[in-house]
Amino acid sequence: MAKEEIKVGLMGLGTVGSGVVRLVMNHQEDLRHQTGCSITITKVLVQDIQKERPVHLPPGVVTDHPEELLHHADIDVVVEVMGGIEPTRNYIRQALESGKHVVTANKDLMALHGAELLSVAAQHHCDLFYEASVAGGIPILRALVEGFASDRITRMVGIVNGTTNYILSEMKKKGVAFADALTEAQRLGYAEADPTADVDGLDAARKMAILATLGFHTEWPLDEVHVRGIGDVTLEDVRFAAQLGYTLKLVGIARQDAGKVEVGVQPALLPNEHPLATVDGVYNAVYVHGEAVGETMFYGPGAGDMPTATAVVSDLVTVVKNKKLGVNGRSVVSPYRERKSKPPGEIWSKHFFRLRVADEAGVLAGITRLFADEGVSLEKVLQVPCTQEREAEIILVTHRANGEQLLHMIKGLEALPAVIRIQSHYRVEGGEE
Amino acid sequence: MAKEEIKVGLMGLGTVGSGVVRLVMNHQEDLRHQTGCSITITKVLVQDIQKERPVHLPPGVVTDHPEELLHHADIDVVVEVMGGIEPTRNYIRQALESGKHVVTANKDLMALHGAELLSVAAQHHCDLFYEASVAGGIPILRALVEGFASDRITRMVGIVNGTTNYILSEMKKKGVAFADALTEAQRLGYAEADPTADVDGLDAARKMAILATLGFHTEWPLDEVHVRGIGDVTLEDVRFAAQLGYTLKLVGIARQDAGKVEVGVQPALLPNEHPLATVDGVYNAVYVHGEAVGETMFYGPGAGDMPTATAVVSDLVTVVKNKKLGVNGRSVVSPYRERKSKPPGEIWSKHFFRLRVADEAGVLAGITRLFADEGVSLEKVLQVPCTQEREAEIILVTHRANGEQLLHMIKGLEALPAVIRIQSHYRVEGGEE
Repeated sequence: MAKEEIKVGLMGLGTVGSGVVRLVMNHQEDLRHQTGCSITITKVLVQDIQKERPVHLPPGVVTDHPEELLHHADIDVVVEVMGGIEPTRNYIRQALESGKHVVTANKDLMALHGAELLSVAAQHHCDLFYEASVAGGIPILRALVEGFASDRITRMVGIVNGTTNYILSEMKKKGVAFADALTEAQRLGYAEADPTADVDGLDAARKMAILATLGFHTEWPLDEVHVRGIGDVTLEDVRFAAQLGYTLKLVGIARQDAGKVEVGVQPALLPNEHPLATVDGVYNAVYVHGEAVGETMFYGPGAGDMPTATAVVSDLVTVVKNKKLGVNGRSVVSPYRERKSKPPGEIWSKHFFRLRVADEAGVLAGITRLFADEGVSLEKVLQVPCTQEREAEIILVTHRANGEQLLHMIKGLEALPAVIRIQSHYRVEGGEE
Repeated sequence: MAKEEIKVGLMGLGTVGSGVVRLVMNHQEDLRHQTGCSITITKVLVQDIQKERPVHLPPGVVTDHPEELLHHADIDVVVEVMGGIEPTRNYIRQALESGKHVVTANKDLMALHGAELLSVAAQHHCDLFYEASVAGGIPILRALVEGFASDRITRMVGIVNGTTNYILSEMKKKGVAFADALTEAQRLGYAEADPTADVDGLDAARKMAILATLGFHTEWPLDEVHVRGIGDVTLEDVRFAAQLGYTLKLVGIARQDAGKVEVGVQPALLPNEHPLATVDGVYNAVYVHGEAVGETMFYGPGAGDMPTATAVVSDLVTVVKNKKLGVNGRSVVSPYRERKSKPPGEIWSKHFFRLRVADEAGVLAGITRLFADEGVSLEKVLQVPCTQEREAEIILVTHRANGEQLLHMIKGLEALPAVIRIQSHYRVEGGEE
């Protein structure tokens, strides 16, 4: 039987770290009931030990020497909420190598070096859990690994970045431009001073790499995730989408058909009746389609100190339970399927085009002929006048077309003299399939 | 190390049972990767061995002798999808007593005798899992027990009965009366020939008893769940609710405040922007509010052969993994909190009233004075004429009032001469809290 007190070394004491301290302190009694152990935060690694902190810790707990956690024989579990790639990766390796279990909220690290760290963990019979790395407080990784253990997941569509979802929600709801929505998000603390990782879709891509790896039992590296951000999305796009019954969202899409997989992040149109279309503001949601279970969705806060801390401490509870049972590091299923990417010709979806055209006879006929020649039929067509004289806008939604057809359509449109420019084009997700 | 072949005895071969057989057969390779074992369905208990079945099983597998499963030394796990209380309860007891693990989809049984059966399981170091008993394919029990292990759940609001949700969705969407929607549900196989258990809210009550027990760590017996069904809901109620921005749903509500709990099932109004308001048709969803995590929601198919089978076989996977690790029956946390029910005076919510009144001067003033005297303020008031001459309808939505105030308001309204009758009143859930 394991000892009755579990000692935790916490790396990082920012908002999430403080949340972890609060949760462990306030819920001590419940945690003891659930695990049969008391859980103590013994050491906390920070950069600046002089800095004022929102939580009170006994003297001697806070340190700026990593080795006090990593090589402290008493510490059972290291909880990492400091973020970043290095030296974090090195610390986690050291912790695992000295037989400490690790709970991390670090999506960047897990997306880039998850396979390596999980293999170090397995070698040393340690748990390495990372529920908090995707969709904050939503227990989505558990759902994939355990809840759907018996099923074959075919599709995951995720709103997994709160910052961009807030921006797009504001654009739709209040009719403000991208830049203004971003400024507001920064003011509210929903976007960082440098918003690149969020706006460019990189943060969402990291989460999709983690989801695809777990959901499809296939190691899915980050550089195999196609990424397009929302930097180009205009208010007009959002408005025309709404006019046709769609909501524009930054979505991660991971699909599997006949063993071949595509994983990407892009702004896409969702039909308003899609369960993800109404997920607004900084909330996250992951839609999961399984062969047997059908459509499911998991919704909740995607970030924030306490929601993220909840996921971290729930992982900690699992580590402690495993420790009592003596089964740490033994429940992980490694990815066992070979990675096969879908070629563009096998990636099917509907597409939305917004075209600026010369307002003259025969333009629409020329455009529709181009689509017909490519074998792509149109579901919706909308022509509207512009403020610019002798110009018009044509908005099209196609039926399903594949990635090769998409490239041909774009080339064909660019070659048509009457098409002044392609203002935007987006994938349309969900619907008829 | 456990043996490499896990033998399953299946009780029941209806739609869910056939789904279990199909899933285990079709996903054999995946199941082996996840568990390191092959899973074989060795015996299947049916009532009539002559009946044609949609799945093909080797000769000698199907039997009508329960002892062939229950006392068969080779069988490791019994999967129960035959339903009913007796003899099912007796069979499950026998299975556990002979050291077999049990997976069941039986909400009736778990709501009534869950505590007893879980204690028999614990005594014999057996697993007893029942994910499929609540909300079909949604892994909600796992989310409560593991995903939110670190949090304190304060509120669960569930649409956990597909039949009634289908009926209410049709009434709202198509403007059909209750009876017609029910007939259509029966025609489509969404409602049984005798729809009492669904329509009267009993089925939902069973699920809420299970959710409350797990979410609040408090044994919550079925007879402590207050139940009101949808038999009285009229199309007018649905329409007036819609006019004021609400959707009428049969919801299970389980709330905890300062250690005191209320659990009930009733038709209630949800603001249209509430995540549950758009859950339509036979879909289920459970909204979970945790002190730290905040608002989350889990959405998916609430019934159906394959979704339910997914939940059953995922539980089976957990049993097999536990068996490999030698930890069966050791991970359960028994309810450890004392049961404290909220008295009516501590049950707070908004309320919707639809009143038939005499169309004469001063009526509205009299009614509003009654509410004011009770200390309850009004959020919305709508007066509309009726086809009946010299009568009118008044629709009111109050601000928060407690259960005692509610009774006083009802008595007061009944005593007012100008109030011809209270057509309906419903709780309004969600919103401002």
